[in-house]
Amino acid sequence: MVEGQPFVIPTGYARVGDSLVIHGSQASRMLRTLGQGIEVCMTVTLIDGLVLARSAFHHSMNYRSVVVFGRATVVDPPAAKLKALRALSEHMIPGRWDDVRAPNERELQQTTVLSLALTEASAKVRTGPPLDDEEDYDLPGWAGVIPLGVVARAPVEDARLPPNSEAPQYAVDYARPVLKQ
Amino acid sequence: MVEGQPFVIPTGYARVGDSLVIHGSQASRMLRTLGQGIEVCMTVTLIDGLVLARSAFHHSMNYRSVVVFGRATVVDPPAAKLKALRALSEHMIPGRWDDVRAPNERELQQTTVLSLALTEASAKVRTGPPLDDEEDYDLPGWAGVIPLGVVARAPVEDARLPPNSEAPQYAVDYARPVLKQ
Repeated sequence: MVEGQPFVIPTGYARVGDSLVIHGSQASRMLRTLGQGIEVCMTVTLIDGLVLARSAFHHSMNYRSVVVFGRATVVDPPAAKLKALRALSEHMIPGRWDDVRAPNERELQQTTVLSLALTEASAKVRTGPPLDDEEDYDLPGWAGVIPLGVVARAPVEDARLPPNSEAPQYAVDYARPVLKQ
Repeated sequence: MVEGQPFVIPTGYARVGDSLVIHGSQASRMLRTLGQGIEVCMTVTLIDGLVLARSAFHHSMNYRSVVVFGRATVVDPPAAKLKALRALSEHMIPGRWDDVRAPNERELQQTTVLSLALTEASAKVRTGPPLDDEEDYDLPGWAGVIPLGVVARAPVEDARLPPNSEAPQYAVDYARPVLKQ
């Protein structure tokens, strides 16, 4: 919210204890505004499938979503910032952090980290088949679920790597958990 | 925004002409609030890949996102509502609408459709390899992109279908376009 206008900005996140953390450039308007302690809402949604019913009305999606409310605070001590950045990295690419050059002092200063306590949140989940009106079950036509999931393809190596560089296992096998339908 | 608290709610969407449309239950607090013409923000994000740099600092994501601002209006005439609902269905599952029972009058009344003109929007795209600091290119370790995409798996048929029901082609071949990295 800036002057009555809400902004919804995509960003990575991680959990540290009972808080969510996000990060970004010190120059980011979003982070500067949120760091002032205004009311904020963070939402994560995973789409697990398209639900095809016999009626248009009962079409739906299978999904898991969580909505978190509160006021974010700036994480200031360098050690706490580093811990949050490591959590963000490990949440997105487990195993990566120890393979890369850690942030130096200048980079840490250029990075803003915010924390949002997980005190007020609501989760919603839909799973399973379509639920049609009883009289519609006799209609002809197919009904069911098209399962959807995020998959990783083979890693694409940077053109400036030395010849015969081998991608690490966490990149070759990268996968996010997929729910059974 | 309800009483100073922003809400970020996942929902389907479609484009009708130069507007975005969303829909939901007439009882939905989100839709009733938005229909009053408050400032709203709609954001769509597609994640195309994880970008692994040589430094933690330069890790990134490849993505496409669009953020739309404005005030939504309620779509009231039944014909316009139907057109929007068909667009929502066809955007998500092309070919499905003509195979299912169309909404009846009661269902149409129970459905709220909102339209947001595409007058103020901003798009962001990141593609390509990591961009490291020049002095980091000599570091050992792998760098590159892990491409990510949404894929559909084999349709799961509803247990109440007659035996030997065949899933339609749009369900068997369901796919979303995937960007080249």
